Amino acid sequence: MRADGVSGPPRVLRHLNRNHVLRVVRESGPISRPAIAQLTGLSRPTVNDVVGELVRGGVVDDGFTEPASARPGPRARLVSFRARAGHVLGVDIGGTKVVVHLADLAGTILATRRARTAAARSRTDVLRTVRDCADQVIAMAQIPLSSVRAVGVGTPGVVDPATGALALAPQLPDWEGIVLSEELDPRLDAPVHVANEVHLAVLGERWRGAARDVRDAVYLHIGVGIGLGILIDDQLYRGSAGAAGEIGYLPLTDADADRPEGIGALEYAASGAGFARRGRLAAEKPGGERLRELAGGDPDAVSAETIFQALRDGDPVAAGITEELVELLARATASACLVLNPATVILGGGLSQAGAALAEPLARRVRSLVPIPPRLEISELGDLAVAYGAVRLALDVSDERLYRMSANGERRRTP
Amino acid sequence: MRADGVSGPPRVLRHLNRNHVLRVVRESGPISRPAIAQLTGLSRPTVNDVVGELVRGGVVDDGFTEPASARPGPRARLVSFRARAGHVLGVDIGGTKVVVHLADLAGTILATRRARTAAARSRTDVLRTVRDCADQVIAMAQIPLSSVRAVGVGTPGVVDPATGALALAPQLPDWEGIVLSEELDPRLDAPVHVANEVHLAVLGERWRGAARDVRDAVYLHIGVGIGLGILIDDQLYRGSAGAAGEIGYLPLTDADADRPEGIGALEYAASGAGFARRGRLAAEKPGGERLRELAGGDPDAVSAETIFQALRDGDPVAAGITEELVELLARATASACLVLNPATVILGGGLSQAGAALAEPLARRVRSLVPIPPRLEISELGDLAVAYGAVRLALDVSDERLYRMSANGERRRTP
Repeated sequence: MRADGVSGPPRVLRHLNRNHVLRVVRESGPISRPAIAQLTGLSRPTVNDVVGELVRGGVVDDGFTEPASARPGPRARLVSFRARAGHVLGVDIGGTKVVVHLADLAGTILATRRARTAAARSRTDVLRTVRDCADQVIAMAQIPLSSVRAVGVGTPGVVDPATGALALAPQLPDWEGIVLSEELDPRLDAPVHVANEVHLAVLGERWRGAARDVRDAVYLHIGVGIGLGILIDDQLYRGSAGAAGEIGYLPLTDADADRPEGIGALEYAASGAGFARRGRLAAEKPGGERLRELAGGDPDAVSAETIFQALRDGDPVAAGITEELVELLARATASACLVLNPATVILGGGLSQAGAALAEPLARRVRSLVPIPPRLEISELGDLAVAYGAVRLALDVSDERLYRMSANGERRRTP
Repeated sequence: MRADGVSGPPRVLRHLNRNHVLRVVRESGPISRPAIAQLTGLSRPTVNDVVGELVRGGVVDDGFTEPASARPGPRARLVSFRARAGHVLGVDIGGTKVVVHLADLAGTILATRRARTAAARSRTDVLRTVRDCADQVIAMAQIPLSSVRAVGVGTPGVVDPATGALALAPQLPDWEGIVLSEELDPRLDAPVHVANEVHLAVLGERWRGAARDVRDAVYLHIGVGIGLGILIDDQLYRGSAGAAGEIGYLPLTDADADRPEGIGALEYAASGAGFARRGRLAAEKPGGERLRELAGGDPDAVSAETIFQALRDGDPVAAGITEELVELLARATASACLVLNPATVILGGGLSQAGAALAEPLARRVRSLVPIPPRLEISELGDLAVAYGAVRLALDVSDERLYRMSANGERRRTP
């Protein structure tokens, strides 16, 4: 007992101790109290006090392990994070699909739902699809809607850091100007945080994918659109107006007289859509027989996959189109690498799934363009990278509230 | 007096308090003890203790102001940083010139010396020029060599973060592989820290130039070489191998069959040297009369300045060459902006001194290429940006040693 009559450490220190213990329990639990004391450097009495408060706050459980007949001695008393005390939604709204992940507070994915958006005619169509998917994952996991603590959303376009309004999003109907944090789902009583889809993809790969072991990485998305997600010192780099990595506008080609307004030069030429368009044009011309054949005789049915199939068959027209794509993507990758000098570039998005047919010539050409080239890796999460990143974003939001709540709880106890 | 018998705050806290007071005295001094207490939040007795230690360590002075006849009352007792207790050198080693700044510990530039390196035939020549300039500023400031506490050096090329060895530096003779921190000047008994020249230029502009009021900026250098200096959240961004911003290699043009090995495509076409080369070629052809005339009849004497002069005279050939330059520089600026989305781009290096003739069409073209364009500003420090950045780097090194010294002093006093 100190002279000022307050027992134990001062308030600010108790708050820090609480967060410290909570982190250790989340990351290393179930865990014994002596182990918590060892990992945090706190005394045994302090650990007991803090765990007691966290148990009363419903944030952790404190119980005995199941009897293990194979192991002699008394059962261990372990503290565990109450992962199911709440849930988060991770939403990927893309130009062709919606993916919704439901996860518990420990980040375990409990349910996933996917739907197509390619035919969506309006903003309302897209939002209805998202709500349907959210309803379905909530039903699958058998949780109440009120258990959702936070929502992370990835979308094409630039999210204005001040207003949350979207700009530069031609991929979805009537999407520019939408404030998703307000319009996503009026039934949700949880904070909705929105970010560019490619920005979230690099967070996803950092959390559960190819960037698991690095703190700096660039994620190159080649799908419906083209963009970069940039991780610097383990932080997402968004740029001054949220527009970092908008390399679809790179002025790397002038051969685009028919480019619609609002679509970037590189994106028009080298996105998945641009690649397929080149294939469709080639299928209509002499030499395009193989492409036409693989598309069931209909040049308009040629897709990126059709071109890769023809390439595997040794078709020279497909090889020519792919070579042009590789050259543009290599110049885009080189541009990003010359500016940022990353150690690792992760290749993601639909076209990255072509595997070695694209990645090998791309890596070769990047090495010839960049004096200090990066390691090139393929996305591990594939087309789930954005949804994982959205879950990670939602967990970060929920964690912050959890720690704040725990701080508020403390204030109530010491008026 | 606490129960454990130690008077005053614990050791780590006293170290923090000392650094806090030192910073306040450096940044706001000469300053009274009550004002220090107010700015730091420390108690008057603590401030008295800390100031006493700093005075004994020779780091600050503690004295009375000059009598001010206009002001009644007693003279104020003020604490001031001993700016002249040591000095630093800021060295800019460029492809055409060396600049050496000598500054005191408060960052006041006391002497500057400049010499040409364009005729240097060897590494030894360049290093001798640097040493001569250093000797001269030290003589001008009338300080002993031993007073130099730290040296910052800017150089073309990539500085390996692990070894300090230089790579990709074709601008200076026999420069690749040199470890400047070891070879700069064997007489110096001070740490030598080396960085890429353009990286230092952005630090210089942040400290005393156009980036004074921002924490994020991109500095585009167009001089002998082309490169970017990147400031993110008030920190210099160097990249994983020290090669961030090496945009001289951007693959924005293929019209360079005669490009020597080791020079980047953009740098060959759009650096100051590339611009002058285009002018020399044009001066030899029909239509190049005005350029030839301005160069005294000798096409080989055409420089960047000759072209800008002809442009001001309305010469169509000079206008054509400048237009090509603007287009390439706009595409390079756009590439950097699409990756980084900076709020501010500072235009520096020799060509930036052309002023509005270059900056206005460049800004216009950048706005047409980048959907969310930056503010474009001209360097305020001109060709001294690197030298200022080198002084800033040296001051940071010296400060760190100062604070460490003060911490060591404390350890000696409390065994």
